[in-house]
Amino acid sequence: MPPAMETYPVIKQFGRTLRNLDAVLEKATKYAEARKFDVNNFLQQRLFPDMLPFVAQIRIACDNAKTGAANLSGKPAPKHEDTEKTFEELHARIAKALAFVDSVTEADLAQVKEDLPVKLAYPPNKGLRANDYLFGRQIPNFYFHVVTAYDILRHNGVDLGKSDYLGDLPLIDA
Amino acid sequence: MPPAMETYPVIKQFGRTLRNLDAVLEKATKYAEARKFDVNNFLQQRLFPDMLPFVAQIRIACDNAKTGAANLSGKPAPKHEDTEKTFEELHARIAKALAFVDSVTEADLAQVKEDLPVKLAYPPNKGLRANDYLFGRQIPNFYFHVVTAYDILRHNGVDLGKSDYLGDLPLIDA
Repeated sequence: MPPAMETYPVIKQFGRTLRNLDAVLEKATKYAEARKFDVNNFLQQRLFPDMLPFVAQIRIACDNAKTGAANLSGKPAPKHEDTEKTFEELHARIAKALAFVDSVTEADLAQVKEDLPVKLAYPPNKGLRANDYLFGRQIPNFYFHVVTAYDILRHNGVDLGKSDYLGDLPLIDA
Repeated sequence: MPPAMETYPVIKQFGRTLRNLDAVLEKATKYAEARKFDVNNFLQQRLFPDMLPFVAQIRIACDNAKTGAANLSGKPAPKHEDTEKTFEELHARIAKALAFVDSVTEADLAQVKEDLPVKLAYPPNKGLRANDYLFGRQIPNFYFHVVTAYDILRHNGVDLGKSDYLGDLPLIDA
């Protein structure tokens, strides 16, 4: 029988990173206030004309964490419509993703086997084995969208550093 | 006794992602050739004046994979000097990191316990428990630098897509 996967720390970290992203959005709001422009102008910012805008980077990061937790735990993911037009609504989108991710417990993920087939939304009728799904797709894809959101803000002058992205780490003496 | 961690799939994926990054660099070279400029001009490109340049993003991504594999396996990491001035040298830097990452086997990582203290290069005399180190620091940090390198190229017009970053995934019917 294929071994069980240690999935919970990955999903838990998705939650931590979404909380860090939420705090990054707060910093963007303060920056916009100080510069006296509408923070919601960030929603359509892109690093290149054929890249997805900031609003989509946040939505996809949220959905990636949510569907990862759902597909591996077997709990159905709540549907979240892509309708956000303000930072307030983006905070709410992150909160909804977090509520679901936080509801998935270690026990819910304890039974995941490496070769569990996981159906993808795209391409149609295709999927990945759980091991490839988590390490080869969900992890790289989640961080892709979180980092690109960060990079869009950074490129536009928001005063962010790596510690905003990584959050507080539980350092020990070593 | 704290449980052992499933560390190998993460380190193996770092290797795959570095291979994808190497192919991304090839695409940048072809783009520069088509546009008739020196591809090495990318090395000092940044998304904002106080962000690290492309060359540093590649170096740190490589070092992050290398030190992650070293710290968790107990195998000493080879030292790689930060002297690259060309794309050819960046390919060589990636190859050196890959040679080390690929040398670390599943057996080398089988004994890692969640609470193993891992010393960090910075801040001095500080470290993290293996679980926090891998999921809270090495994974997010590795993808931060790979994605920012990708974003710098994308921002400068290189024709890249998500599949260049994710690489070929072993899709199954589902």
